[in-house]
Amino acid sequence: MGPGPSTVPARILKAISSPTLGHLDPQYIGFMDETCDMIRQVYRTENALSFPVSGTGMAGMETIMVNLIEPGDEAIVMINGVFGSRMKEILTRCGASVHVVEVPWGQTFTKQQFADAVTQYPNAKLLGVVHAETSTGALQDLSGVGEIVHQAGMLFAVDAVTSLGGHDVRVDDWGIDAIYSGTQKCLSCPPGLSPVSFSPRALEAIDQRKAPAQSWYLDVSLLKNYYTGGGGRAYHHTAPINMVYALREALAIVLEEGLDARFERHRKMHLLLREGLQKLGLQYIPENSLHTLNCVAVPEGIDEAAIRKRLLTEFDIEIGGGLGVFAGKAWRIGLMGESAAEKNVLTLLAALEKCLP
Amino acid sequence: MGPGPSTVPARILKAISSPTLGHLDPQYIGFMDETCDMIRQVYRTENALSFPVSGTGMAGMETIMVNLIEPGDEAIVMINGVFGSRMKEILTRCGASVHVVEVPWGQTFTKQQFADAVTQYPNAKLLGVVHAETSTGALQDLSGVGEIVHQAGMLFAVDAVTSLGGHDVRVDDWGIDAIYSGTQKCLSCPPGLSPVSFSPRALEAIDQRKAPAQSWYLDVSLLKNYYTGGGGRAYHHTAPINMVYALREALAIVLEEGLDARFERHRKMHLLLREGLQKLGLQYIPENSLHTLNCVAVPEGIDEAAIRKRLLTEFDIEIGGGLGVFAGKAWRIGLMGESAAEKNVLTLLAALEKCLP
Repeated sequence: MGPGPSTVPARILKAISSPTLGHLDPQYIGFMDETCDMIRQVYRTENALSFPVSGTGMAGMETIMVNLIEPGDEAIVMINGVFGSRMKEILTRCGASVHVVEVPWGQTFTKQQFADAVTQYPNAKLLGVVHAETSTGALQDLSGVGEIVHQAGMLFAVDAVTSLGGHDVRVDDWGIDAIYSGTQKCLSCPPGLSPVSFSPRALEAIDQRKAPAQSWYLDVSLLKNYYTGGGGRAYHHTAPINMVYALREALAIVLEEGLDARFERHRKMHLLLREGLQKLGLQYIPENSLHTLNCVAVPEGIDEAAIRKRLLTEFDIEIGGGLGVFAGKAWRIGLMGESAAEKNVLTLLAALEKCLP
Repeated sequence: MGPGPSTVPARILKAISSPTLGHLDPQYIGFMDETCDMIRQVYRTENALSFPVSGTGMAGMETIMVNLIEPGDEAIVMINGVFGSRMKEILTRCGASVHVVEVPWGQTFTKQQFADAVTQYPNAKLLGVVHAETSTGALQDLSGVGEIVHQAGMLFAVDAVTSLGGHDVRVDDWGIDAIYSGTQKCLSCPPGLSPVSFSPRALEAIDQRKAPAQSWYLDVSLLKNYYTGGGGRAYHHTAPINMVYALREALAIVLEEGLDARFERHRKMHLLLREGLQKLGLQYIPENSLHTLNCVAVPEGIDEAAIRKRLLTEFDIEIGGGLGVFAGKAWRIGLMGESAAEKNVLTLLAALEKCLP
């Protein structure tokens, strides 16, 4: 019940241990096609180029940025926590001039703030924002933002690491051009892959690059020949085959439950937890809390690490501490995928009641 | 029996399906420490910074290059196959001026050619070479090369993707400053991680960089805080936990067999295969063949793809076709890790005899 990895169901652990096929074996290519198709479904997109990057969520962030940005480009990043700052860091390493729009940690951005940002920095090629800030538990409303970004002629890039599979992520409806997530949060799969999706508009921008992406490993202009190659799959690198088995099973579980039913389960578990935490006198930090990650302030005078340790050793429950400016000041309680269950919520509340003075 | 992935033993498939721990869980940190220690043993090195990169072998190549090279640096690459060319490609994307020393595919380099290279390009910061060229099956002798490279004040970078666990790789004895491999070849682990090792001399060069590495995901100056952090592990990215379970088990199996015994098994299986192939009239392409990958010329007038397909469908045996200039002209037969077994060699020889006209 920390900020991830979440609990991995037995079905997925069984799938990951299937015999390792060759990465060009027709059967494996079939599995990969099914995986890409399910990635499209959970992202609610028709984007042809939707695939799992062969690295963790941060490799997904880097894939988006190294492909869309060239040295000298301008970019806007909306920062309200750790992962917005990382976007800035990675964009800077891609040679971009980065304009930052910042609000205090825990807050989110209004549509007006997006509109102001694209007006203030009209030459930016890309605007990046985090949908679900794992460091603060804040959920950013993205509806209508794509239009604002597109009207300014920019690309819209989104971090959905802690939302995909737990909150609705509507890539096509929201006009998202490039998005990445991780497997180990609300998909309840082990970490190791990053599902990404690129819009046709993003692919056009990549086609118009003056120079190749600075990363060969993450270069979409090469990778697309493998992931959307039809019959003639070009070898690029050896895919992490067993991890793909796991992700394929995880996505199948998500779609069997149904996206809407799954989001509703996360919402209900969040409300149950929220009610219990408030009874214990604990206050949520963000205004607009994620269902999947619950970030509460540690009451004055309490040694937060000692309580986390007691939860782990006495009750076998892991929750997260604060990151960055929230270090020592916040607990982060994950209700992600398989972990978003009534039994878990009630056990944690009972354990917390015992541990709090 | 292709060029990888090789057959994965049941013990490793069992390990990969163990419950997913948190990446900062003390038990997992212990597993990671054991894994890094075993990576040191198989590389025969004392290098403190030896760890599995969270990506496949090509991510390992990129990790070495993005950390050791800055825009404007010069580098030398010895090319005798596909993977030397990839080194050049990645170095170029790092902003290096790359000097190439090339011999025909299948050949290897003499010590004199290394000495001539560092004399001809004295300003290079790094010399890169492939120990085991997966595309040609050639084994490069590396003993004494490190001295030549160091005397010229350069760093020595090596690709050991198809040798580690099947041929002796002596990082310290051979003066290698940075090396990478993959898990899916002679370690017989699923693909998804890249064991790397950096010498103290390489770390010094990284400390003296003027600008950060262009990749954040692969930045060793950040990663070393996690992999050699002792008590206070800094969170960088979520490690691919189940893949690390698999690699830990794979390395344990290698060390249980013993490095020397394992190399001797690969040598014997290579000799058995070579004798049989020659009886069938097939000729090896490289002068100095790997034991782990056997590259033979397809006889005139034979449809090589049809024979590979028959081997796969009738006999359940996968072998590889040629890459690059060898496409359509070579077969590549892997004897890697678990796959280097007498039963496999004899079955393949019998099947080939049936398939050849």
